[in-house]
Amino acid sequence: MSTPRRAVRELFNPGSVALVGATDKSGWSVSTYENLRAGGFAGTVYLVNPRTGVVHGERAYPSLSALPGPVDLAYVMVPTSAVLSVLQEGAALGIRSYVVLTAGFGETGEEGRRREDDLAAFARCHGLTVLGPNGNGYLNTAAHVMPYGLPLPAPLPAGPVGVVLQSGALANSILAFAQARTIGISLLTSMGNETLVSVPDVVDYLADDPATRVIALFLESVRHPAEFARAVRRAAAAGKPVVAMKIGSSALASSTAQAHTGALVGDDDIVDAAFRQLGVIRVRALEDLMITAGLLGEIGPLPGPRLGVVTPSGGASEIIADRAEAEGLTLPPFAASTTAKLKAILPDFATVQNPLDVTGYVVVDRTLLGRALDIVVHDPGIDAVLLLSELPRVPPAGDPGPMMALYEATAERIRTSPRPVVVVGTMLTDVTDYGRTVRQRTAFPPVLGGIEHGMAAIGAAARWNRTTPACRPEVRRRDSAPALSGTPTGIWTEHQAARLLADNGVPVVPSCFASDEDGAAAAAERFGYPVVVKAVAEGLGHKSDAGAVRLGLTSADEVRRAHREVRAAVRARDAVATGTLIQPHRTGGIELLVGVVRDPAWGLALATGLGGIWVEALRDSALRLLPVDAAEVRRALGELRGADVLRGARGTEPADLDVLAGVIAAVARLAEGLGDRLEALEINPLLVHGARVEALDALVTWRS
Amino acid sequence: MSTPRRAVRELFNPGSVALVGATDKSGWSVSTYENLRAGGFAGTVYLVNPRTGVVHGERAYPSLSALPGPVDLAYVMVPTSAVLSVLQEGAALGIRSYVVLTAGFGETGEEGRRREDDLAAFARCHGLTVLGPNGNGYLNTAAHVMPYGLPLPAPLPAGPVGVVLQSGALANSILAFAQARTIGISLLTSMGNETLVSVPDVVDYLADDPATRVIALFLESVRHPAEFARAVRRAAAAGKPVVAMKIGSSALASSTAQAHTGALVGDDDIVDAAFRQLGVIRVRALEDLMITAGLLGEIGPLPGPRLGVVTPSGGASEIIADRAEAEGLTLPPFAASTTAKLKAILPDFATVQNPLDVTGYVVVDRTLLGRALDIVVHDPGIDAVLLLSELPRVPPAGDPGPMMALYEATAERIRTSPRPVVVVGTMLTDVTDYGRTVRQRTAFPPVLGGIEHGMAAIGAAARWNRTTPACRPEVRRRDSAPALSGTPTGIWTEHQAARLLADNGVPVVPSCFASDEDGAAAAAERFGYPVVVKAVAEGLGHKSDAGAVRLGLTSADEVRRAHREVRAAVRARDAVATGTLIQPHRTGGIELLVGVVRDPAWGLALATGLGGIWVEALRDSALRLLPVDAAEVRRALGELRGADVLRGARGTEPADLDVLAGVIAAVARLAEGLGDRLEALEINPLLVHGARVEALDALVTWRS
Repeated sequence: MSTPRRAVRELFNPGSVALVGATDKSGWSVSTYENLRAGGFAGTVYLVNPRTGVVHGERAYPSLSALPGPVDLAYVMVPTSAVLSVLQEGAALGIRSYVVLTAGFGETGEEGRRREDDLAAFARCHGLTVLGPNGNGYLNTAAHVMPYGLPLPAPLPAGPVGVVLQSGALANSILAFAQARTIGISLLTSMGNETLVSVPDVVDYLADDPATRVIALFLESVRHPAEFARAVRRAAAAGKPVVAMKIGSSALASSTAQAHTGALVGDDDIVDAAFRQLGVIRVRALEDLMITAGLLGEIGPLPGPRLGVVTPSGGASEIIADRAEAEGLTLPPFAASTTAKLKAILPDFATVQNPLDVTGYVVVDRTLLGRALDIVVHDPGIDAVLLLSELPRVPPAGDPGPMMALYEATAERIRTSPRPVVVVGTMLTDVTDYGRTVRQRTAFPPVLGGIEHGMAAIGAAARWNRTTPACRPEVRRRDSAPALSGTPTGIWTEHQAARLLADNGVPVVPSCFASDEDGAAAAAERFGYPVVVKAVAEGLGHKSDAGAVRLGLTSADEVRRAHREVRAAVRARDAVATGTLIQPHRTGGIELLVGVVRDPAWGLALATGLGGIWVEALRDSALRLLPVDAAEVRRALGELRGADVLRGARGTEPADLDVLAGVIAAVARLAEGLGDRLEALEINPLLVHGARVEALDALVTWRS
Repeated sequence: MSTPRRAVRELFNPGSVALVGATDKSGWSVSTYENLRAGGFAGTVYLVNPRTGVVHGERAYPSLSALPGPVDLAYVMVPTSAVLSVLQEGAALGIRSYVVLTAGFGETGEEGRRREDDLAAFARCHGLTVLGPNGNGYLNTAAHVMPYGLPLPAPLPAGPVGVVLQSGALANSILAFAQARTIGISLLTSMGNETLVSVPDVVDYLADDPATRVIALFLESVRHPAEFARAVRRAAAAGKPVVAMKIGSSALASSTAQAHTGALVGDDDIVDAAFRQLGVIRVRALEDLMITAGLLGEIGPLPGPRLGVVTPSGGASEIIADRAEAEGLTLPPFAASTTAKLKAILPDFATVQNPLDVTGYVVVDRTLLGRALDIVVHDPGIDAVLLLSELPRVPPAGDPGPMMALYEATAERIRTSPRPVVVVGTMLTDVTDYGRTVRQRTAFPPVLGGIEHGMAAIGAAARWNRTTPACRPEVRRRDSAPALSGTPTGIWTEHQAARLLADNGVPVVPSCFASDEDGAAAAAERFGYPVVVKAVAEGLGHKSDAGAVRLGLTSADEVRRAHREVRAAVRARDAVATGTLIQPHRTGGIELLVGVVRDPAWGLALATGLGGIWVEALRDSALRLLPVDAAEVRRALGELRGADVLRGARGTEPADLDVLAGVIAAVARLAEGLGDRLEALEINPLLVHGARVEALDALVTWRS
């Protein structure tokens, strides 16, 4: 499925481009031609039009075959029905790279899907590299190659951000925003239908591209999870963070209706888990996508979460403090030496603290902010500094000299700072023309667009670092499968499920199967009271929903009655009860839900939740894609809102987290070993009592 | 404390202004003078400077007394030590309104605080109206009165948004943003120290101000909750929503350490609850403050949450769908007639659904978006329409005529739409100069800045309506106090607390006090097994923390042993156990926590949480300020993440919500009646079993 690395490199770096279907009547053609010219393309641009000799004021040729020189990239804008023949002609001529702008393929229905399949088959067979169809092309600003079919909003700043878009219609907004905020772009690709060249191919290219330092993705779906993961890991290994906006969180998804975990885990939760495990920074807004990528591209990941904050405003300081907490950043108190030095330069009435407000006195002494910055950057307890500062929107009334000198001095302080300094503006507005002039003249660093989005970016930049999960060694996949006789089908309720767990090292509460009242009573006497009686029935999901469980039985008579009643309850639901299970009734302890579900795209995922019946109502669960080891399970448990309960909050016995994580990891290993046959596996509850961990009930759903 | 309404009106609408302390050497003076002049102030501006006869190129007078005409407003910029004497001189001359820009008062420490007290005392005594000190003044754009001490970033659009800021340093960013996004402002006030004129005074003024249709607040603290509530209710009654950004969410606050509820409820939660009950729209970002206020000012509250969405982009449609869900908005399917009409105009390959993507074919047929809009606005199942559309950033390459005609046509469609149409851009950038030109020439409506902030604004506008809580009749305060003998002190544990509850109509689990083992055993026999034994001890808070509770005891022997052990456990904690309580051991049912805590600013607040020991760990609680009635309690219960459990999710017996809300309302009424003596009252758990609701344990903390 994935395109060879060399082929993608050729696609994005042609020496000559042919615009096939070029015509003055098409806005796409006009734009593509102008973008190539205005972008400073140094190679040859050929125009191909079978019906006229002049297009865009230049000579046009009737076909690819008629061109006087070799073509590295064909940009195809011909009618849908003619696309394949262009590829055929190009293949015969040895042209290997194509951008297909033309629409009318898979996105339009069945007939288009067939056309797209034909195109894909031909391209694969002949080793062609095709971007699109139904995409606007790309902008390789680093190499000055702009075969892109929509008008560009403004001179595009070149820079470190590689942008990959699954929605072509958003490109213009993203380009306008990048221009407005002076966020430099290395490559922007509008993917179209991803028939051949896919998002992972481009990510993989950007991992190698020297002009790119960060990768920004807009994703409607992750079509090739395994390749996506591989490409992201390569980018991370090259020190390039991946920032992604993935939409579709509102779509309700429940691939496994039977197991509880289905209700806990939507498609979007799986994407969250996958991104977290891969170190992909997920953002929820387009502004965050570009501002976060801009920070990571210009300054890079930050060394840690301890932020020193220097501002000229008390209100802004408090907004920053609020946002810092939400982003997991800390504002540690300044060292005594820092405080002393700050006191020496600030007015008496200033409160010297982190975040620092140098006070409105900055209006009188304009050097105050810069001098305070110089002190704070040397504080030993911080990892990075946030300087709140704005670029001017319009020229000052009088001589701009003093103001320029001030920006120059601050820029110099930032350049020579021993710690990264991130400059943030208060609110998100454009960098105006005059603001650009000031930046240019004073070499002032980029200013993040507003506290709201700027803090999201700083939080992400502090979290991402070179020990990001994608850089850790992968957890080894289990290589042997657990013993299973025959090919299991349908749903295994407690009886069978418990045996499978027990056989694979997962502790299970003792239980006896009883086919009649006498057997039930005898088992209860052996265990001692209180006991639990549960119906064993084929095809019955959650027993507590069906009235098929009786808890806290304290005598043989009660057990006999329960045996009769739960079987009756099952019959009332048109299921067949083969008997009952008798178990000791465990009380106290902490109940967990441990479930493994299969995501159609990402494979098996492990969900861990706390709180018995509460887990679903509260949607407090932590999710991981398999494989996981016990260490990763411990991290997942730590993410639960109710994690304090496991640690012994409010008088509960603290759980032995090592034992617990070991048991959950064993469940994950078992599920992984069951492989393709498994649809879902759920233990609910898994009861934890200090170091005693026991599955009290379980359910296994097999794929048909 | 509050300033008379007439006085505030005079403050903001002077016919003549004296700048006291005017000097060419001060940027503040230059700005204030220029802002008054450039703002088109029609009245007289006097300059007062004791040392020079010419300031800002105009005649200056040595003192207020030397002025040739009457002064309505004195804008005071003199040194701190001279402020009081200016007020004294002014008072003698009959000048009633003052803006004090000068700093050096309460914000600087003890000495400044004394100075501020003197100033306040003098002003009160002489009926003066003072805005500030330590504030930059105000901009009354509607009346063209701009006594404001900082340079204005750009020509300021007049409009419907009244802005009140507790942080003067943020004003410039807010003004620049308003200018960048063409959000019109009626009045902007920089409050300073709020020595006399306070935020509620200005809100109250804006409630009457005909130029203001929405009120935007930036708050560091709500200094006068009762007056704030009154002013917000007046604004709501006038149909003017209040949007507020209140900072300080990161400050950890726990006013009541003893009761659990303290851990559940921070200051910020109280503010949330208060704002919700008042219908104040709380936002978390400055951009949201201004964009939400802008929408409410220009279009007003939306009639409902059902949104029709028309876009030229599939990606943007999905972002909107994600954000809609987060904002509680729905995108209902279009009616059959709407779908049929859309199919008739859209290309075959378009998917006709809500949100609607008219497809990239809009590049070929530019009328497509407008024609689709015309159909969607008539759909009977929607309350409002979102149109995704951008203003152009730069002039088009060729003739702008066709483009202008298109904007004009769309503007006309929006004007004649039977439902409100909100135009939203994709990302937040400035409206450029050319964008402004297009808006002006085509009468195009305002465009909200980006999907991210635009959807927050639409969500708020759909939630706020004329039945907002502030417009509902207030819940009547309880007027009689419950009977209590003497003045209670310290902590009442279960024994006393339960009696208080029972005497005031709150059902409590039956219990017997036992001073010895025999008594304990006898009580257990009367109740029947299983029973619970709890230590009764003075000054002991949470018994389960202290090992002073035994559950599920099933025989007299167990009860006797428990009686001994829990008393021993209490003694081990250096407390005195006077005996034990014996109660039936209730099992099953749903456990709630119901607590009333006192907030120093807002008074008593009711917290309701679900889940026994989970409630604290999961922080799932709903908060209301007292008084509340049963209907409000039902709404609060509905807000809990775990609300489904109350409704019978997963086999639990559904709670009788009417009975439950009635009991909780009775707890609230009791707490309210206890009045000033009460610090906190907590029931944990309150057990619900269908219609049976019982307090199993309670704790009352009295104020010392």
